[in-house]
Amino acid sequence: MSSGLVLYGYWRSSAAYRVRIALNLKGLAWEGRPVHLVKDGGQQHAPDYAAMNPQQLVPSLRDGERVLTQSLAIMEYLDETRPEPPLLPADAEGRTRVRALAQLVACDIHPLGNLRVLQYLERELGADEARRGAWSRHWIAIGFAAMEAMLAGHAATGRYCHGDAPGLADACLVPQVYNARRWKLPLDDYPTIRRIDEACNALEAFRAAAPEAQVDAPVG
Amino acid sequence: MSSGLVLYGYWRSSAAYRVRIALNLKGLAWEGRPVHLVKDGGQQHAPDYAAMNPQQLVPSLRDGERVLTQSLAIMEYLDETRPEPPLLPADAEGRTRVRALAQLVACDIHPLGNLRVLQYLERELGADEARRGAWSRHWIAIGFAAMEAMLAGHAATGRYCHGDAPGLADACLVPQVYNARRWKLPLDDYPTIRRIDEACNALEAFRAAAPEAQVDAPVG
Repeated sequence: MSSGLVLYGYWRSSAAYRVRIALNLKGLAWEGRPVHLVKDGGQQHAPDYAAMNPQQLVPSLRDGERVLTQSLAIMEYLDETRPEPPLLPADAEGRTRVRALAQLVACDIHPLGNLRVLQYLERELGADEARRGAWSRHWIAIGFAAMEAMLAGHAATGRYCHGDAPGLADACLVPQVYNARRWKLPLDDYPTIRRIDEACNALEAFRAAAPEAQVDAPVG
Repeated sequence: MSSGLVLYGYWRSSAAYRVRIALNLKGLAWEGRPVHLVKDGGQQHAPDYAAMNPQQLVPSLRDGERVLTQSLAIMEYLDETRPEPPLLPADAEGRTRVRALAQLVACDIHPLGNLRVLQYLERELGADEARRGAWSRHWIAIGFAAMEAMLAGHAATGRYCHGDAPGLADACLVPQVYNARRWKLPLDDYPTIRRIDEACNALEAFRAAAPEAQVDAPVG
């Protein structure tokens, strides 16, 4: 039973990883189309892909005739067109809290550690691998310190970022924790983040969305 | 007649500027509380403010007892709690398009040109003013090229980013154009963006939200 959903992504892209989690949480069937971000000078720059997504970034989601871009906009769309189970709470106060947590990751951490940014730091500013690593850890650490404070001290935090069902904020948090581990950022100072990450990764929806579970992940 | 809305912002912050536009488009009364991002080592790091907004960024919006953070989450909240006039279209396809345009600015342009990022480039990577300017222009130019393609070629683009009423995408675009001019990025390649920016700035809601119209803007 195909829902006609096609996700253009890359195994290790945080933004694609988020959308995979959202699709899986909703129990939707989807077909993955790998876009290799390095091979061929970056397949996201190929004319066919650029025509579909002028930003030349992943992910893009095709839903029948519609092409959607931007991971947060895609997840909101999924929540509006396939409402169950919801990715956002029903009340305005809860919704803005979940969106703020998601955007803390998607606006204030992830864009700074993106591949194209690291490439610019190396090429134009001569930043070696050690400095690029320090840069990445710096922005994740600042963001996680704020997120830990927002989660640990709040009555609405439950097994997951908001209550006892996983949602939009969790779909953003888990890929960022994956990325933090890649950069070897110690996570000792973020016990609530670690606890929620562990609870999420106990779910099949998150495990099946993991980078290493994708067809385009390198073998071994 | 006070609506009890208090906006903690900074005159030149793009993210605060967005929320000012949204508040004005909805015709809401609000009180501004300036948070100076440089003075006193950055007033956003003061304990009272950090307790309210653990990210130590502007803006924050107080709505009665509630404190909201993240400009996009705040604007979605305003649209849910004060629906008229709407900042988002009614249909799911239109909503995801407007959100994607807004996020193109808020996730993929603005975070890279933020004050804290420019400070890091200078302090840790020795980037002088010329290189910081080149960095800022680079990310705006890439983002605007994609946004121009998404706007110019699309039937839903009207007088504003989506149809003939201003909304969420316009509230993100106009502050980014302001920022582009500050960095002296030539805008010749983005005629649709320029046209929409001009249409927006003909409206009092946008003019009253402009950095120079704020109480904390330097005089003269």
